[in-house]
Amino acid sequence: MSKAISPALASGFRDYLPSNMIARQKMLETIRTVFERFGFLPLETPGIERLEVLTGGDPEFKKQIFGVNLLNSDRLDEQLALRFDLTVPLARVVALHSHDISKPFKRYQVGNVWRGEKPQAGRFCEFVQFDADIVGSDRPCADAEIISLMYTTLSELGIEHFVIKVNNRKILNGLPSYVGFPKDKVSEVLRNIDKIDRLGWDNVAGELSDNVGLGAEQLQKLRTFLDVQDNDHLVVIKNTKEIMSDSQDALSGVEELAAIVNYVDTLGIPRDKWKIDLSVARGLGYYTGPVFETTLLDLPSVGSVFSGGRYDDLVSRFGNDVVPATGASVGVDRLFYALSELNLVPKVPTLTQAIVLNFDSTAQTYCHEILRKVREANIRSEIYLGKEKTLKAQLAYSIRTEIPFVLIAGERECEQQTVQVKNIREKKQSTHKLSDFVVELKKLIR
Amino acid sequence: MSKAISPALASGFRDYLPSNMIARQKMLETIRTVFERFGFLPLETPGIERLEVLTGGDPEFKKQIFGVNLLNSDRLDEQLALRFDLTVPLARVVALHSHDISKPFKRYQVGNVWRGEKPQAGRFCEFVQFDADIVGSDRPCADAEIISLMYTTLSELGIEHFVIKVNNRKILNGLPSYVGFPKDKVSEVLRNIDKIDRLGWDNVAGELSDNVGLGAEQLQKLRTFLDVQDNDHLVVIKNTKEIMSDSQDALSGVEELAAIVNYVDTLGIPRDKWKIDLSVARGLGYYTGPVFETTLLDLPSVGSVFSGGRYDDLVSRFGNDVVPATGASVGVDRLFYALSELNLVPKVPTLTQAIVLNFDSTAQTYCHEILRKVREANIRSEIYLGKEKTLKAQLAYSIRTEIPFVLIAGERECEQQTVQVKNIREKKQSTHKLSDFVVELKKLIR
Repeated sequence: MSKAISPALASGFRDYLPSNMIARQKMLETIRTVFERFGFLPLETPGIERLEVLTGGDPEFKKQIFGVNLLNSDRLDEQLALRFDLTVPLARVVALHSHDISKPFKRYQVGNVWRGEKPQAGRFCEFVQFDADIVGSDRPCADAEIISLMYTTLSELGIEHFVIKVNNRKILNGLPSYVGFPKDKVSEVLRNIDKIDRLGWDNVAGELSDNVGLGAEQLQKLRTFLDVQDNDHLVVIKNTKEIMSDSQDALSGVEELAAIVNYVDTLGIPRDKWKIDLSVARGLGYYTGPVFETTLLDLPSVGSVFSGGRYDDLVSRFGNDVVPATGASVGVDRLFYALSELNLVPKVPTLTQAIVLNFDSTAQTYCHEILRKVREANIRSEIYLGKEKTLKAQLAYSIRTEIPFVLIAGERECEQQTVQVKNIREKKQSTHKLSDFVVELKKLIR
Repeated sequence: MSKAISPALASGFRDYLPSNMIARQKMLETIRTVFERFGFLPLETPGIERLEVLTGGDPEFKKQIFGVNLLNSDRLDEQLALRFDLTVPLARVVALHSHDISKPFKRYQVGNVWRGEKPQAGRFCEFVQFDADIVGSDRPCADAEIISLMYTTLSELGIEHFVIKVNNRKILNGLPSYVGFPKDKVSEVLRNIDKIDRLGWDNVAGELSDNVGLGAEQLQKLRTFLDVQDNDHLVVIKNTKEIMSDSQDALSGVEELAAIVNYVDTLGIPRDKWKIDLSVARGLGYYTGPVFETTLLDLPSVGSVFSGGRYDDLVSRFGNDVVPATGASVGVDRLFYALSELNLVPKVPTLTQAIVLNFDSTAQTYCHEILRKVREANIRSEIYLGKEKTLKAQLAYSIRTEIPFVLIAGERECEQQTVQVKNIREKKQSTHKLSDFVVELKKLIR
């Protein structure tokens, strides 16, 4: 313990102090309540998984993954790593515990994930995801459930202006034959399409021309495809069918969309809260059908705060069974940032309702009696434990920490068996008998 | 996606399926409620820290630490690692955010920690801790607050037979002069004393003789010291004072104990729920004064589920200021295991209150209308999404998942605008109008 160590965080990581955490927990509680109302049950998996579970043998994923190894030991004989999402671990759970899980399996999970993003403004290497997934259902009404969950969650968080964008990967798989480019370029084209929101069409078109080799006519066709939009979902479906009539894959994607649209209406999601958007691709490789993302209309730059899709092939990575699955994930930190920007996060500096001051050494025991009574009444409370000795300085601490009620007792109060109750916000003070001040305090708190 | 990947967990890690998670969350909620009632506020820190923050330059800790590095990259230029507890990160937070934190700072934190324990029965490499700490108070009443918090938490979790053991490291620091061994052997002696509960006195005495070189007379003195016990705390304090009268450090530890005892009584902790136990040392190197641990009397083998102590020097690792601190930590997984063994964990297979069956293709839309109404009434509910097509098979799924109410609607119910409500536990069934079945269902749920 000789030389001082810097208390710096690792770069790309952050702390949440109580002033943020209180509101953040409230947000998480709202999400949990909605997820449970939709019949999702909690699951927890470890942060550390075997590397091959996470990558599925795909070398592309590794770039973002944090490996883990026991320092000063060569005990571990398998490569371990930190999870980068909660979906792959879910697929592993379904494969591993297949006998203990009744399917369809609706689970939610909230937890940290880690990705080696380049540390830069607003990008972090550790963040919380809050996922809901339905495993073991290939029905479009399961996808509609997810969209309904997204709508209800965002609404109950108090967000008024948002839109859930819905698409289907199968439709995008029809692009090579419609636009005219090799099938093995489809991922690259989709990755570029995903960037239109951020970079604009012109820049993306430039990329597609330079790197994928699309000509003017091909770019025009792609543009026509992406421009299929209408307030009436049925028109979008009809037009997409016409354009993509050559691709069996695309047509089945359109059929799925049509079925989902029908349930989404029945579940009462207002028409202005969702739309079909053929430009939505979602980055992750495992999506196989419907994909969903959200745009906050008052804060589009923040990106999607709640996204997902169907991934029917992921569980089969671990064996022979194909288990269809669909779900979506809240980016908790991004959502919290967005809610703060939208002034939907009430500033809550403390949860503590009362503080007992402790400035008179002859009244120490009496003050602890007061504390005990307050806590027995389930009032969130503390006793002043700092080094200030005077009433004035202790009161200053109470005001600084914004605890609304201050309980004052010195030698005189101890003798008279009374307590002074100070209401900081209303600047009122009253004296009560020890035997009944708790009842009074409870009234004041209400 | 060619060859199948094993869905095995990494060795030393585990999943919590919903049947355990529901009860586990209830336990965490109870702990959180008590911690907030005691005026502790939530904090969150990242799982990954800079290695030197965690070790403080002490090579002994490294053995248990998981290092972290970005795979396929040499971007990171500092050694990162996973936290092994929540106390060291708290000390870092206090040093880093000293201007944003009013002291005394009472915070709680719940989160994963990682230690490279040898995988064996009941030992895991990743587990959850739930900590409460008071930073910036050197007063014995702060230590008493922690003991009171421990008592209240365990009581509210429904545990009847437990005892909180209290000691003071300073007393143990008097052992070299009292027993007669070199001062630099004190850590080794304490580590051995910590094992008495598990290994018994004879084995520990053997170790102390073989490895530390204590003779028969010295072991006898140590034994005399450890045997200072009495139902009356004041007698223990008096006897300890007499034995350790040569050590100024020990005497000041006894004084602190005496002060704590006084507050613990005032705070109303029953005499049979705590005791002074001079054999309690606690393993971690950072404790400087009072130390606390718990024994579950009906399940002593499980070890301490809630432990802590005072660590006045930890924050100064990061700079010049000495910031006194005290706190305790719940071993969440160990506690959950103990509660299960004590039959204090109610088996809750599901949170979902109602399931809408979905067996008649002509009534699909009607069933989704029912679902919508149920959810609008805040009833936790789902619609059957699996591949079974018959009422019978869907009912079997509902019974298997133990959802208490089943809502049935086929073509006839759709025509008549009715819903059948089946109470699975009471084996009762009734038919209601669509317009008022939700009111009936809510009554039945209550």
